[in-house]
Amino acid sequence: MSQRIVVVGGDAAGMSAAHQALRAARAAGRPVEVTVLEATGHTSYSACGIPYWVAGEVPSGEDLVARTPEEHRAAGIDLLLGTRATSLDLERRVVGHDGGGGSPGEVAFDEVVLATGATAVVPPWARTPGGELVAGVHPVKTLDDGALWLELLAGGSSGPRRAAIVGGGYIGIEMAEALLRRGLEVALVTRSRVMGGLDPDLGERIRAGLVEAGVQVLEGTQVAQVERSEAGAGRVVAVRTDGGERLPADVVVLALGVVPATALGRDAGLPLGDAGGYLPDAGGRLAPGVWAAGDCCELAHRMTGRRAVVSLGTHANKLGRIVGENLLGADRRFGGPLSTAITRFAVGGVHLEISRTGLSTAEAREAGYDVVSLLTEGTTVSGYLPEAEPMATKVLADRVTRRLLGVQIVGGVGAGKRVDAAAAALWGAMSVDDLAGMDLSYAPPFATVWDALQIAARRLAERI
Amino acid sequence: MSQRIVVVGGDAAGMSAAHQALRAARAAGRPVEVTVLEATGHTSYSACGIPYWVAGEVPSGEDLVARTPEEHRAAGIDLLLGTRATSLDLERRVVGHDGGGGSPGEVAFDEVVLATGATAVVPPWARTPGGELVAGVHPVKTLDDGALWLELLAGGSSGPRRAAIVGGGYIGIEMAEALLRRGLEVALVTRSRVMGGLDPDLGERIRAGLVEAGVQVLEGTQVAQVERSEAGAGRVVAVRTDGGERLPADVVVLALGVVPATALGRDAGLPLGDAGGYLPDAGGRLAPGVWAAGDCCELAHRMTGRRAVVSLGTHANKLGRIVGENLLGADRRFGGPLSTAITRFAVGGVHLEISRTGLSTAEAREAGYDVVSLLTEGTTVSGYLPEAEPMATKVLADRVTRRLLGVQIVGGVGAGKRVDAAAAALWGAMSVDDLAGMDLSYAPPFATVWDALQIAARRLAERI
Repeated sequence: MSQRIVVVGGDAAGMSAAHQALRAARAAGRPVEVTVLEATGHTSYSACGIPYWVAGEVPSGEDLVARTPEEHRAAGIDLLLGTRATSLDLERRVVGHDGGGGSPGEVAFDEVVLATGATAVVPPWARTPGGELVAGVHPVKTLDDGALWLELLAGGSSGPRRAAIVGGGYIGIEMAEALLRRGLEVALVTRSRVMGGLDPDLGERIRAGLVEAGVQVLEGTQVAQVERSEAGAGRVVAVRTDGGERLPADVVVLALGVVPATALGRDAGLPLGDAGGYLPDAGGRLAPGVWAAGDCCELAHRMTGRRAVVSLGTHANKLGRIVGENLLGADRRFGGPLSTAITRFAVGGVHLEISRTGLSTAEAREAGYDVVSLLTEGTTVSGYLPEAEPMATKVLADRVTRRLLGVQIVGGVGAGKRVDAAAAALWGAMSVDDLAGMDLSYAPPFATVWDALQIAARRLAERI
Repeated sequence: MSQRIVVVGGDAAGMSAAHQALRAARAAGRPVEVTVLEATGHTSYSACGIPYWVAGEVPSGEDLVARTPEEHRAAGIDLLLGTRATSLDLERRVVGHDGGGGSPGEVAFDEVVLATGATAVVPPWARTPGGELVAGVHPVKTLDDGALWLELLAGGSSGPRRAAIVGGGYIGIEMAEALLRRGLEVALVTRSRVMGGLDPDLGERIRAGLVEAGVQVLEGTQVAQVERSEAGAGRVVAVRTDGGERLPADVVVLALGVVPATALGRDAGLPLGDAGGYLPDAGGRLAPGVWAAGDCCELAHRMTGRRAVVSLGTHANKLGRIVGENLLGADRRFGGPLSTAITRFAVGGVHLEISRTGLSTAEAREAGYDVVSLLTEGTTVSGYLPEAEPMATKVLADRVTRRLLGVQIVGGVGAGKRVDAAAAALWGAMSVDDLAGMDLSYAPPFATVWDALQIAARRLAERI
């Protein structure tokens, strides 16, 4: 008898699990039936690409789709599109669903994979009394969100002129770039600091870059309410901050992060973490025959073991794939996130590449490390070449063990991806001396003879 | 009494040792006298930058000088410029020198550092019967070479039109770029293959790029003789290959590599390796009170322990610095080269970034590994962005242990430096699974969601 695998959610994690299970089954000569329930009309798309679509760099939303429903079906997946899972019964081993517009139904499973992702945070002020989003106020999470943003921004000179972005993290920065490129005036409001996951000295450089590009940045500020046209019943016309400031805005980007979409499992009695995410083990298991992967999970950080929602396609793909193998009996383990991340803010004459890996100073202290750190100025390539750009590198290490704890980079073209060497060093639990001494690549158009990353590590190593 | 340190050679390795010794002495409150003998008129310059100077990207040779003689002297170094060391007496503990145009003399030492670098290989056919270089035939090694190349290439439309480059390694490729950028026609002759240190499948891509940019590439070919004007007594007009082909050439670049400059130590009885280099231990020691660093050394490869000349400023700087500390009693050790290297060939519409780390297939086999490898095609950034460029990544691992053995990359803008994450993984003796699974940075303008490097590693891992 075929093993019946039901996957709830047809994006990165779910589809990685589904395909990998099929591959593993084929390799093992074992019959499986893989059913995927996807609530929306889209599968396997790059949510991270949406700001670039909004900016006009990507011609169509379809370009963001890595695999179409037809491709998934051709690979042997029974894909129920537009079909929302409504219940999970772990006793009867069935997932109930809304029937995708038809009659509600159930699918029975031997193994179920929860890959329901996360939903954008929508604060109360962004909703009408009826619970709808105020017109012109919208998050940037799904392909449908992206399409809506293109509609909102249409109209050329009669279209929106002023945008308020609420949230100063990755999506906030990326949407600031996109909207500036489209010619809007942009204000960015953030409760804490711009890119608050980085140390403040790095964040300050990003704030300065935003300001230089013309963004009005309000740090330490929250939006308290939204002003609407038509006596408060129409589109957004402004937001008001908790400090009483009024920011006129024809559109408002909600970039306040995400929360795991875990109602299905919660209602089935599965335990959730502090952030509301599933708590899979390193193999992706939640309970016998029950698995989870992707943004609906809280993953154990590789360096601290602490659980956190790390909403990134890289982890969704990797853990999804591991789950796919483990479904067929493998015992593979996810290595865990290092909190590696990268983004860009590039408009006009401003080009900042921003990256990090490992722990920030605050995170490292909280995890009990005796943190020493140093911010070092360098250049991306040999200073005598015209393309050399500044690159600020902050390296963190533990004073006692000399273990490398984290690296943060803000710099020009070519700076950002340099963080990967540090990520590899962290993956191997190496020391700051290893990072300073290792044999990284050098030629004048690519680095200084002591790579900026290694100068930063060496200078910190000398101070410990 | 002051510790007397004499450094022979005032470039990367020697000056790193000299400065670090001064710093360490200052920190320890110990008196030292540091004397540096430098045969040329230059110190601390970027030899790797010379092709970019020749290409016109760097305005002046002075831009390639990291620290001037005055700066070294201001730091407390007794610098004897234009002063060639002529003898080393390990019994009497003195270095003899030519007096720099004045009277020959001697400097006494307690510790001596040999940092005499390497000299360009000049084949017999490149010399006149009197032993001089044929006019128009020249290597690319020193600042003086660079200045001479600018002279050779001057004259605009009445200047040289055709160049032959002899040697298909890093300098050969870089000079091909430089000379094409200056408008010359370029033929490149190489005994083996273009970039023969890489596997042939990667090398073939580089050959194709050279050809696409208009270079006439002759692989498996050696130059047998040079033709000169004025009945064989004047400037070069052509080279003839061992296959009898005549390549007209107004200038000929000698890019045949280097040999360690170790006559001083050899004559003093110090042992040399197979390639003629000094054989320092990991701390830079040759004998009690005798040290060496830089291109005059054969370094023990981190992965195989085998000695080789790895002529790169990165190692010269790192080992030089370690020697500087060890001179004052520290016990620091050089981690060894991984053979990491990078270069670029970018002319007109061709832009190839070329990098490697670890062992090639041939090297890994020779070292006794059971090599499995795979070449994978990917893109530098998310394929839906206009800036995405192809990136071919070859990953090598050991079949039995799954240890990562090497990575080679040939690709467009942003491809080359990706090798550093692999270098870090090699530094930590990680497996191909580690490279595939580690948390590298992702955002659409920087990588695909599975980084091209990790797709390559994963696919190889699946095949083992």
